[in-house]
Amino acid sequence: MATLRVLIDANDEKGLVYKISKLFYDNELNILENQEFVDKVNNKFFMRSVIDGNVNKAQLYSGLKEILPQKSTLKVIEPKKKDIVIMATKEMHALGDILIRHEAGELEANILAVISNYDVLKPLVDKFNIPFITVSHEGLDRAEHERKILDELKKFENIDYIVLAKYMRILTPNFVEDYENKIINIHHSFLPAFIGANPYKQAYERGVKIIGATAHFVNNNLDEGPIIAQNVTEVNHAYNWKDMQKLGRDVEKVVLSRALKLALEDRIFVYANKTVIF
Amino acid sequence: MATLRVLIDANDEKGLVYKISKLFYDNELNILENQEFVDKVNNKFFMRSVIDGNVNKAQLYSGLKEILPQKSTLKVIEPKKKDIVIMATKEMHALGDILIRHEAGELEANILAVISNYDVLKPLVDKFNIPFITVSHEGLDRAEHERKILDELKKFENIDYIVLAKYMRILTPNFVEDYENKIINIHHSFLPAFIGANPYKQAYERGVKIIGATAHFVNNNLDEGPIIAQNVTEVNHAYNWKDMQKLGRDVEKVVLSRALKLALEDRIFVYANKTVIF
Amino acid sequence: MATLRVLIDANDEKGLVYKISKLFYDNELNILENQEFVDKVNNKFFMRSVIDGNVNKAQLYSGLKEILPQKSTLKVIEPKKKDIVIMATKEMHALGDILIRHEAGELEANILAVISNYDVLKPLVDKFNIPFITVSHEGLDRAEHERKILDELKKFENIDYIVLAKYMRILTPNFVEDYENKIINIHHSFLPAFIGANPYKQAYERGVKIIGATAHFVNNNLDEGPIIAQNVTEVNHAYNWKDMQKLGRDVEKVVLSRALKLALEDRIFVYANKTVIF
Amino acid sequence: MATLRVLIDANDEKGLVYKISKLFYDNELNILENQEFVDKVNNKFFMRSVIDGNVNKAQLYSGLKEILPQKSTLKVIEPKKKDIVIMATKEMHALGDILIRHEAGELEANILAVISNYDVLKPLVDKFNIPFITVSHEGLDRAEHERKILDELKKFENIDYIVLAKYMRILTPNFVEDYENKIINIHHSFLPAFIGANPYKQAYERGVKIIGATAHFVNNNLDEGPIIAQNVTEVNHAYNWKDMQKLGRDVEKVVLSRALKLALEDRIFVYANKTVIF
Repeated sequence: MATLRVLIDANDEKGLVYKISKLFYDNELNILENQEFVDKVNNKFFMRSVIDGNVNKAQLYSGLKEILPQKSTLKVIEPKKKDIVIMATKEMHALGDILIRHEAGELEANILAVISNYDVLKPLVDKFNIPFITVSHEGLDRAEHERKILDELKKFENIDYIVLAKYMRILTPNFVEDYENKIINIHHSFLPAFIGANPYKQAYERGVKIIGATAHFVNNNLDEGPIIAQNVTEVNHAYNWKDMQKLGRDVEKVVLSRALKLALEDRIFVYANKTVIF
Repeated sequence: MATLRVLIDANDEKGLVYKISKLFYDNELNILENQEFVDKVNNKFFMRSVIDGNVNKAQLYSGLKEILPQKSTLKVIEPKKKDIVIMATKEMHALGDILIRHEAGELEANILAVISNYDVLKPLVDKFNIPFITVSHEGLDRAEHERKILDELKKFENIDYIVLAKYMRILTPNFVEDYENKIINIHHSFLPAFIGANPYKQAYERGVKIIGATAHFVNNNLDEGPIIAQNVTEVNHAYNWKDMQKLGRDVEKVVLSRALKLALEDRIFVYANKTVIF
Repeated sequence: MATLRVLIDANDEKGLVYKISKLFYDNELNILENQEFVDKVNNKFFMRSVIDGNVNKAQLYSGLKEILPQKSTLKVIEPKKKDIVIMATKEMHALGDILIRHEAGELEANILAVISNYDVLKPLVDKFNIPFITVSHEGLDRAEHERKILDELKKFENIDYIVLAKYMRILTPNFVEDYENKIINIHHSFLPAFIGANPYKQAYERGVKIIGATAHFVNNNLDEGPIIAQNVTEVNHAYNWKDMQKLGRDVEKVVLSRALKLALEDRIFVYANKTVIF
Repeated sequence: MATLRVLIDANDEKGLVYKISKLFYDNELNILENQEFVDKVNNKFFMRSVIDGNVNKAQLYSGLKEILPQKSTLKVIEPKKKDIVIMATKEMHALGDILIRHEAGELEANILAVISNYDVLKPLVDKFNIPFITVSHEGLDRAEHERKILDELKKFENIDYIVLAKYMRILTPNFVEDYENKIINIHHSFLPAFIGANPYKQAYERGVKIIGATAHFVNNNLDEGPIIAQNVTEVNHAYNWKDMQKLGRDVEKVVLSRALKLALEDRIFVYANKTVIF
C-alpha cells in the first residue's frame, strides 16, 4: 500500500481525464485529492492527484506514460521530507519564520544548512542545531563568490530547493542554471513593480498606498521568474520607507513560507514563466 | 450542437469520475470547463462541467442518471438568461449596482420587476424601464404584507432568483419556504457577527477594526442561511457607525453582485447549510 | 455662523500648531475635525481643519496668512457642491458607479457633462438628464481632438475636477497643464506595475496572483501622477486576461469613486508627486 | 534633554489643543510625533505626542496637569523596554513569532518568562535563554491553578503586559482584575463571531468564506474585551477546519505581534470597551 502524488502536465486532448481515471479505477486506487486545470489559451492540461492503493511507483509511472500524449511531463512522487538549503544575509524575519515552522514540524523538509555572506545570523541558526556556513563576499568578485557557494552546495548529495530568505545579492544566470525552478526568492515588492534594489524606497518615492511582497522562482533574471505567491498591506502618507520596510517584513515572511510549503507539497507547475498552483 | 452545464451532487464512490468522463468521451463531447470537489467529511462528490457537442439535454440527462448513485442530484442546464425579481427598500447602492450591470449586459438575467415597500427608488428604476411595484407595509401586519408581495410574485410565470438588495424587512419562514435556495440576501455585516438589526451600530459598539458584508441564501431564519460570498474592509476608531455604513455600502454592493453572478452562472451547490462554489 | 475647511501646507517650524490653535481659540471657533501631519523628511507641515463659528472666510484667511511661514499654501473653503466633468469611452462600470452615487446624493458634486469619443454611453447618461457630449476622434490627430474637447470644457464657467472614468485615450501634456491636480484618472493596474496599454493583458502575461487599480491625478505623463487610492483583489492561474478585466472592474469603480469623494471633500494634498490624505 | 511620550485622555473642551501646544511652545519642546482624536459621540479628547527638549518628566507632568480638565488621564512616559510575561499552551507559532522578533531587537520588551500549563514549548524557549515555568493544571481546579500562576507572576517586581500567545485556558475575572488592560490575548476568530471554544470548527460549520483573528485586552469576560487589531484571510469550500486552523495561524501570529508592538510603543487608549490607536 502506498500514497503517491501524481503530477501531469500535457497537451490537452479529448479523453485525457477518461483515460487517467480509467487507469486509477482499473487499479482500484483511492483518489484522496484531485485537481485539474486546462489552459485553453495554450491548450495545456495540468493535473495533480493524490492516490493510495496497492500500486508501486514504477508501475503507476509506466501505466500513465503509456496513455499520456508524447512530450508530456509526468511525475509520480512519494511524499517525504525534501532537502532544502536556505540562503540569507542579515535580516532575521524570513529565516526565523522558516526555522520556527520547521521546529513546529509544519514543513515537509530537512534544512541541510543556512548559507550567508555574513555571520550575523549564526547565533540564531545555531540555536536550532542547523549547520551555518559563512561564505563572505569580501575581496571576491561575483563569479568567485558564487563559485565558493556552489562548492558548498555541491557537497550535499541532494538539494530539492534553495530558499532565498532575504539573500541580498543578485545571482548570476550561471548560478541559477543548475537549479531551474528550484530557487525560491522573496522579493520585497509587489512585482513587477519596483524591480531591483531598495523596493521600499522606490515605493515610498512613488507614493503608493499599498505595498507587497512576491515569492517567485529565480530563473535567469532576478525578479522576473515565475510568481508563486503574493500578498499586500495598506500604507499611507505617514509611512516613510523604513516604516514600510518594517511593516512589509510581516508580508514577506508569510508569503515566502507559503510558497515554500506549496513547493514542498508538490503543488506548483511552471509553464510559460507562470505557475499553476493546486 | 449544444452547450450545456452539468451539475452533479452525489455520494462519493470509487470510479465516479471514470464513469462520467467515459460517458463524455463516448459521446465525443468537448469539456469546456470542469471542476470537482470531494467533501471527505461527508463523503459527498460535487462536479460542474460545461460541455459542448452533438447531444441533447434529455439524452445527456438520462445517460448520466444511469451511472450516478441513487439519491444523486443531477442538473443539465442550457445557459440562458434567468428570471429575477429584486426587492429593495430605500437605499440605492445595491440596486443601482445591479441595474448598471444589467444595462452593461454583464448579467445573464431578465429583471422582471423591482418590488419595494416604499416608492423612494421608483424614479431610479423607471429610468431603466423596469417595472416598479410598491407594496406598502403601512397598516398591514407582517403576514398580510407578505401575502400581498407573494401575490405579486405569483403573477410571474417563472422566477429563478429573488434578490434582496437591502430589503430591510425580515421575511417569515412562510414566505421563504417556496423559494428554497432562490432568495439571495446581502447582510451588512461579516456574518455570523452582528446578526439582526443595525449591524453597523453593533460593530461600532463592539469596536471592531474590520467591517464586512455577507451574501447568503435565505432559508428559514434570516441571516443564517448558506453563505455565498463575503468581503471586508478596514476601519478604525475615527469611524462612527454612520461612517462605517457609508464605507460598508461599497462592500455590500460588490459582494451581492458577485453572489448573484455566481447564481446566474449555476456555480453554487448548497449542502449542509454551506455552499460549494465553482 | 459659517462652517469652513482650512487647508494648510507649510514648511514646518516650532510653534505652528500653537499659533494656529491660538487663532482658532481667540476667535472662539469650534474645531469639528482636525488632522495634521509633519513630513519629517521634507520638513513639511500639513493640516486640515473643519471649523465653525462666528467668522467669515476673508477674516480667517488673512488671520492665518499672518501667522503662517512665507510660501505656505493656505486654502479656506466653504463646503459646497463642486463642478465636475466626466470623460469616458465605452465601458459603463466606472461611469455608472458615479451616476448612481450622484443620484443617491452621496457626492458633493454637480456633474456638468459627460464627454466621450464615442456615443455608446449616451443612452445611459441620458437617463440621468446629464448633458452628453460626443467628441469623436475619427479623422483627427491627437492635437485636433484635444483642442475640440478643450473647446467644450472652456464653455463651462468653472470646472473643479475632470474625472477620467475609463477614458481610454492618452492625454498630452498640453491638455493637462491647465488642470494641474484637477484630473483624476483610474488606471486598471496596481501602479507602477503595468504602465501603459492593456494592463490586464500584461498582468496575465506576467502571471501575477493579485491585480489592482489605481486612482491618481494626471500631470504630464499619464500613469505617473500622484496616487490617491489603490486597491487589489486576488486572482489565480484559472483567470485569463478577460476574466481579470471583469473582476478588476469592481476594484476600478470603487477606487475611482473613493478618490473622487476624497477630492470633493478637500481631503487631498499633493506634494512631491505624492498625496497626503486626511 | 529627554524624549518623552505624552498620552492624554480628557473630556473635550474648547482650547485644549491651544493650551497644550502653548505649553510645548513655551518650553521650547520639539514635537516629533503628534496625533489627536476627538470622539464627538462621547465628547472625549485623545492625544499622543512624542516630544523632546530640555524638560523632565515631573515638570512636564505637573505643567500639563494644571491645564487639563479635571478627571483627565495623563501619562508622561520615558520610552524604555517594558517587562512582559508570555503565557502559552502547546502551539508554537505565536510564541515563536514573538521570540524571533525579540531576538531581532524589534520589540521594546524584556521577556521575563514564558509560563505554560504544559512543557511542550520548553525546548523552544530554552534556545532563547528565557525562563520557562511550567504550571500544570492537572489535578487542580481552575482557582487553584490560577493561584499558582499568580504566585509565579507576583515574583516579578514589575509586569507591564501579559501576552496570551495561544494560552488555551479561560482566565477568571479574579485573575484578570489585577491586570486591567494589561493582558493581550489572540482569539482565533474574527470577533465577535465564534466566541468561545474551537472557533475554526465553528467557522467551518457555518460555512464562512473568510476567517480571521483578533487581538484584544482581556477584562472580565474572555473574548469580550477591547479589540486592538484584527485581520482576515480568504477560505473556500475545500478547507476543512484543520486547514482553516493551519492557514489561520499566519494571521494569528501577525495580529498578536502587531498588537503587542502597539502596546509597547504606548499607542493604545482604552475607552468604553474600545480602543483608540495612534
